[in-house]
Amino acid sequence: MRMYDIIMKKRNGGILAEEEIRFMIQEYVLGNIPDYQMSAMLMAIYFQGMTDIETTILTDAMAHSGDMVDLSGIDGIKVDKHSTGGVGDKTSLIIAPIVAACGGKVAKMSGRGLGHTGGTVDKMESIPGMETSIPQEKFIDIVNKTGLCVIGQSGNLAPADKKLYALRDVTATVDSIPLIAASIMSKKLAAGNDCILLDVKTGSGAFMKTLDGSIELAKKMVAIGEHAGKKTVALITDMDIPLGFAIGNSLEIIEVVDTLHNKGPRDLTEVCLHLASNMLFLSGKGTLEECRKMSEEAIASGAAFQKLIEMVEAQGGDSSVLKDTNNFAKAPYERKVIASMEGYITHMNTEQCGISSLVLGAGREKKEDSIDYSAGIILNKKVGEYVNKGEILATLYTSKEESLAESERILLNAIKIEEKPIKLEPLIFARIEKDKVEKFV
Amino acid sequence: MRMYDIIMKKRNGGILAEEEIRFMIQEYVLGNIPDYQMSAMLMAIYFQGMTDIETTILTDAMAHSGDMVDLSGIDGIKVDKHSTGGVGDKTSLIIAPIVAACGGKVAKMSGRGLGHTGGTVDKMESIPGMETSIPQEKFIDIVNKTGLCVIGQSGNLAPADKKLYALRDVTATVDSIPLIAASIMSKKLAAGNDCILLDVKTGSGAFMKTLDGSIELAKKMVAIGEHAGKKTVALITDMDIPLGFAIGNSLEIIEVVDTLHNKGPRDLTEVCLHLASNMLFLSGKGTLEECRKMSEEAIASGAAFQKLIEMVEAQGGDSSVLKDTNNFAKAPYERKVIASMEGYITHMNTEQCGISSLVLGAGREKKEDSIDYSAGIILNKKVGEYVNKGEILATLYTSKEESLAESERILLNAIKIEEKPIKLEPLIFARIEKDKVEKFV
Repeated sequence: MRMYDIIMKKRNGGILAEEEIRFMIQEYVLGNIPDYQMSAMLMAIYFQGMTDIETTILTDAMAHSGDMVDLSGIDGIKVDKHSTGGVGDKTSLIIAPIVAACGGKVAKMSGRGLGHTGGTVDKMESIPGMETSIPQEKFIDIVNKTGLCVIGQSGNLAPADKKLYALRDVTATVDSIPLIAASIMSKKLAAGNDCILLDVKTGSGAFMKTLDGSIELAKKMVAIGEHAGKKTVALITDMDIPLGFAIGNSLEIIEVVDTLHNKGPRDLTEVCLHLASNMLFLSGKGTLEECRKMSEEAIASGAAFQKLIEMVEAQGGDSSVLKDTNNFAKAPYERKVIASMEGYITHMNTEQCGISSLVLGAGREKKEDSIDYSAGIILNKKVGEYVNKGEILATLYTSKEESLAESERILLNAIKIEEKPIKLEPLIFARIEKDKVEKFV
Repeated sequence: MRMYDIIMKKRNGGILAEEEIRFMIQEYVLGNIPDYQMSAMLMAIYFQGMTDIETTILTDAMAHSGDMVDLSGIDGIKVDKHSTGGVGDKTSLIIAPIVAACGGKVAKMSGRGLGHTGGTVDKMESIPGMETSIPQEKFIDIVNKTGLCVIGQSGNLAPADKKLYALRDVTATVDSIPLIAASIMSKKLAAGNDCILLDVKTGSGAFMKTLDGSIELAKKMVAIGEHAGKKTVALITDMDIPLGFAIGNSLEIIEVVDTLHNKGPRDLTEVCLHLASNMLFLSGKGTLEECRKMSEEAIASGAAFQKLIEMVEAQGGDSSVLKDTNNFAKAPYERKVIASMEGYITHMNTEQCGISSLVLGAGREKKEDSIDYSAGIILNKKVGEYVNKGEILATLYTSKEESLAESERILLNAIKIEEKPIKLEPLIFARIEKDKVEKFV
């Protein structure tokens, strides 16, 4: 078998055979296929696409390129959740406790943030002492005892994806639906859970900017999950506005605590209830309506918050910052961002909000960058609200005083204020289960 | 400027700006743009194409990546000819003498053969003593004195093309019309002639397998030439049957001599007369009809053969092998290939005929391979002819006795014998001058 012939076949619109896809991934990871052939292939896939079967085989080959996590030591149905990434997205740390409080099992591996998007692992590490790199036995043990554990991704999870993603990132082949689907799902299959809830973000802050694109991606991923014998559901959720008010690591943990105390932002709470009920539904805990009721009760009773405390303590974290969030270290510098005109906020460029927070030190531009956990943004106003001239739009927090001006400039440019109000989009656009697409718009 | 953004722009169907194309070629040659980005770009060009303006700029940037030959020291109009490569194509060595005999100036740089196609320089080097690597001053001097000189391509002619071609060759991006056009024309522009005749081969032995593809390629190349201020004409000629009867280096030189003595194969003679008259037409020697008459007379009078002798002697070659072709060294082994059935020859796979000759030692598989000048094939029968069972189809010549069986097998598989005759294709399918396409089929 020659890579040249496989490139030619895909370039000419052919459907790749299983052995061709497996050969390509295996030899690429071994370094026997050079980057310049793989990048030509990726561009050919961008143009010619892949069938569901090709994408499923590609995903499986990528998943098997490294460790396949064995979670059989955990009793019960293990449910995973994946978000395609966003700004201010702290949902994992809210819904894992809700699901665990209702008897579900969450053994989750999460990522770190890069560029304008944040990562769950970074947010967790803003809690002093919190361990996110835990050996597998202890990981399983914690889930069996508390019902939940969230750690960082193991080094050898789907190495083919790591190598392919780095190449796609520099060859303009990131936004191909089969390649995105295979990238996400290869890690999910390797992570060893029984069922998977996908949170596919859509809008200005997300990978996929259009609803149709998001639905297509979600359908592809659900098909891959089901084909691999994992019950899979996808929700298409809004990422045209940052989720909640907080952007930045410890700031978001404070918002997580508020939400689990039933005092969180309305949008964030609502999205989390949707996600949690779907995870419980996938875990076989009842109908969607029953699972929704259970989730609301887990918040109201304080059981979900208690689960968060249990998880943090089991992972070595200092739970005193959760019991009283005033215990979190404060950023030394802050600045109020003031509206220079009156009117309705009609748009917030979410990606730019993320970059404004990145500039303050809350994220990393390059993998090696370190994070300022206390840095970030608290929004005061969001899309749809009316502001008066001179009113506070947001507060910036940082340890680098010199970053305030640039961050403020980026944030002000990201917020559009107009005379007339706009109609607000729903938070959840669609739900995909097997080949059934339920649209809410 | 970032290569990433340029790839993205082309991938999305954008038209590249002049500075983007020049940046890309310049930085790629310098090694600042890696192969994996360039191969993604080449695949994007394969799918999205390039406008005539983009292709013209690309060609110019590639031409200027190395030496630009200065032929201003040669009096008169210098006319170049390029063939897209074929099997048994010895036309350059017939038409250059005809054109020189009629007062034209031919200062030609030619290539070597690779794979199933032969190269003019290799054919010339089968003449003992023949120099094909000649310093520029002497090259110009020979053309001024004799009217013609054919040498190998200088090492630093369009290095961007050399590097790009090597990459295209392993990434399934060879058969893109703008990329083929830019590759050929960059070398032609760098070679410094005033006008260019393009011989675009079509059929089973050629790059372009269809007439429409060949015409599209020819139009693109003529547009590039004219845009660069060079009068350019293209002929689309048949490469569905090897040209003439001889395939292999000294065997083809013998056929060149026969043709210049007006005893050559009808098809080869006819194609050469077309090519030579078009070169004379481009050189301003008269109408096409007048130039055709001149060309016929140059053969009939022996003036063209005399020019070949002059050129070979000026380049240090031993002209005695031309004056009596029996002086050429003979291959020690030969085999008659016999028809195993009777009927009409309806097809010869020209590429396979080339490979059959390659196996005998007449060509090179890899750049480093050496050539057996006496090896090759003399066809006895061609498409359209009737053969009896037991009749000789061809004779194979080689210094490697062990290659005869494989070569014979390949050749027999390349020749199709059927009960009913077929209608012969014309030798010249079309002529393209500026945006005028004249079809002869």
